[in-house]
Amino acid sequence: MRDVAIVGIGQTPVGELWEKSLRHLGYDAVRAAMEDAGIETAEALYVGNMLSGELNGQEHVATLIADFTGLRGLEAAKVEAACASGAAAMRVGVLAVASGMVETVIVAGVEKMTDTLPAETTAGLALAADQDYEAAEGATFVALNAMIMRRYMHEYGVDKADFAAFPIIAHENALGNPNAMFHLRLTPERYAKAAPIAPPINIMDSSPICDGAAAVVLMPYERAKEFGRGRRLVRVAASVSATDTLAVHDRRNPLWLEAAYVSSHKAYALAGLTPNDIDFFELHDAFSIMAALSLEASGFAPRGKALELAGSGALTLEGRLPINTMGGLKARGHPVGATGVYQIVEAVQQLRGDAGANQLGHAHIAMTQNIGGSGATIITHILRGEE
Amino acid sequence: MRDVAIVGIGQTPVGELWEKSLRHLGYDAVRAAMEDAGIETAEALYVGNMLSGELNGQEHVATLIADFTGLRGLEAAKVEAACASGAAAMRVGVLAVASGMVETVIVAGVEKMTDTLPAETTAGLALAADQDYEAAEGATFVALNAMIMRRYMHEYGVDKADFAAFPIIAHENALGNPNAMFHLRLTPERYAKAAPIAPPINIMDSSPICDGAAAVVLMPYERAKEFGRGRRLVRVAASVSATDTLAVHDRRNPLWLEAAYVSSHKAYALAGLTPNDIDFFELHDAFSIMAALSLEASGFAPRGKALELAGSGALTLEGRLPINTMGGLKARGHPVGATGVYQIVEAVQQLRGDAGANQLGHAHIAMTQNIGGSGATIITHILRGEE
Repeated sequence: MRDVAIVGIGQTPVGELWEKSLRHLGYDAVRAAMEDAGIETAEALYVGNMLSGELNGQEHVATLIADFTGLRGLEAAKVEAACASGAAAMRVGVLAVASGMVETVIVAGVEKMTDTLPAETTAGLALAADQDYEAAEGATFVALNAMIMRRYMHEYGVDKADFAAFPIIAHENALGNPNAMFHLRLTPERYAKAAPIAPPINIMDSSPICDGAAAVVLMPYERAKEFGRGRRLVRVAASVSATDTLAVHDRRNPLWLEAAYVSSHKAYALAGLTPNDIDFFELHDAFSIMAALSLEASGFAPRGKALELAGSGALTLEGRLPINTMGGLKARGHPVGATGVYQIVEAVQQLRGDAGANQLGHAHIAMTQNIGGSGATIITHILRGEE
Repeated sequence: MRDVAIVGIGQTPVGELWEKSLRHLGYDAVRAAMEDAGIETAEALYVGNMLSGELNGQEHVATLIADFTGLRGLEAAKVEAACASGAAAMRVGVLAVASGMVETVIVAGVEKMTDTLPAETTAGLALAADQDYEAAEGATFVALNAMIMRRYMHEYGVDKADFAAFPIIAHENALGNPNAMFHLRLTPERYAKAAPIAPPINIMDSSPICDGAAAVVLMPYERAKEFGRGRRLVRVAASVSATDTLAVHDRRNPLWLEAAYVSSHKAYALAGLTPNDIDFFELHDAFSIMAALSLEASGFAPRGKALELAGSGALTLEGRLPINTMGGLKARGHPVGATGVYQIVEAVQQLRGDAGANQLGHAHIAMTQNIGGSGATIITHILRGEE
């Protein structure tokens, strides 16, 4: 098993990018990552993408992007795990480099969601759920999350207003990220007045439909050290994927993300760390409720106490455990198959000291967590920057 | 880098399996492979599948199958590379075991193509081609292959009748495979009278739309030796994926499968072999023309001479280089994302001496080749059975 380093990062702005097709988005992110790494070619390209078939009428998207990016010939495959597709592609990239079979790997995440009508995109997102036993009953993805959120409020006796801290932090952090989709400050008053989507979820509890692509370049750590380029090296300290039931109703407790618990705690063990050692956490706030459940299952808050943690100020850029330092899914945006790679890219920005206005004072150990479906696939990465 | 062994295989019959849903197909193949291997659980499940989103309204299919198969909790991801999705999933499984990060991996391929109207399925298959520059011009997948076949006939001065040897061999071999879709002998006369689909391609040049699933269990070779169970061990001697332009018109020569050349010759080098050492070859006869091009690019026939080789009898079960020993895509059937795994499963049957009526006298080194799109992604595996 070889240690794996991240030596290049690239990303497109996130938004409604109507002037860019799927292949152009992939090109922009991959080329930026290659330039950042200072490489001319690579041996493999793994692409995280969920909906190219449904929304863009295109499968075989990894080979398409390899071809369009001038990387013709190299190994290519698409990796899909619903909204965790980006981290799933990262996981395959890590396996490839660790195996000793591949030296230089590009991992990209790309999604183009705004060329279709909102109803079509919503139907596409529902493909992450159990079609026969959830979607067939009319449960959209938002509806499933709304039911979980309502149950959480009932079970732990919290108010809807207590969730506001998550989108407020996300929007605050996005102000310093030029690639974020939204640059608007959110207040508790504005959150309270936000339009409902599927009560109790309102528009501010829900990440946006958008386009975007991100990419990283991986190589063996020992080779990366010689490769140099004067930047702080980032090492993959742990890469763990775990699953749960696809359907929420099959779980013993819908408020407990077992796959987040398993993947984060295996990751801690592999990296020789505890939650206390994590300097910041890029978590999957597709909905505010998922941010809360992720913090609890990953060992950062007791059950039912994540909102208290969020309200305490501990999760801001100045807090003890900053989350979603570049805006998270809510405010940077959530181009589904790309999100897991954006999380890695942003963590590397912090670990390198390249996070601009949002740079953390102490950023040596990062954790990222990407969630597919309503918690059915959860992938945790721990990254370690050089001191 | 650890050597990888195949310790279990499973498959469903191929056909129009209307009584089985996608998850049931996956269950049947995965459970059969686990039983064959004698394992109760695994650490990862990689699923090759192309069209679950388009044809079955379900993404997130790897986690679905993990859940439904009672493997809840393990790592799971879908791998897609059009019709090469099965071998692409196998490639990820090999990387995982070789990396030292995962001990026991299940690789499955599953596809359910007959629940939709033929026009919908045809439109789905076209997602493997370049949507903006091929499919948008009305070029279906059959049409693209028909143009390549016509060019081949023109360039090398061969007759359409000369292609008959490929489907005749496939159908002959399928007679001895209880899991094959078709059990009917094909004659040159019947081939000559077969209904045209996209001339010069007729119905006997074209693999069928069907359902099916196959699975294998992988583990480190050193561990597999102790695992035993009295069967001949099969080792993965090479696993190589290569790509070409997605669109056929972008290639310097549409009659040359560069990705087959690259992946097969890299595989020979990794395994320390030449084409002469290959005992049998499971090739990708989605269309007769692809069988010819695959043989030429992989070094088994000079350019333009594959039909001569096929006509010579060398490719039958008794010949020098048997191909598609259990019926190939044409007669076993081509459930697209599952095909690459079927090829591996059938190669293992031969290498173990478990191929029943179709058992080859000398079967120690097998090659499988799975093609995505019109040659855009080509993945070659070489497997070595114990002497």
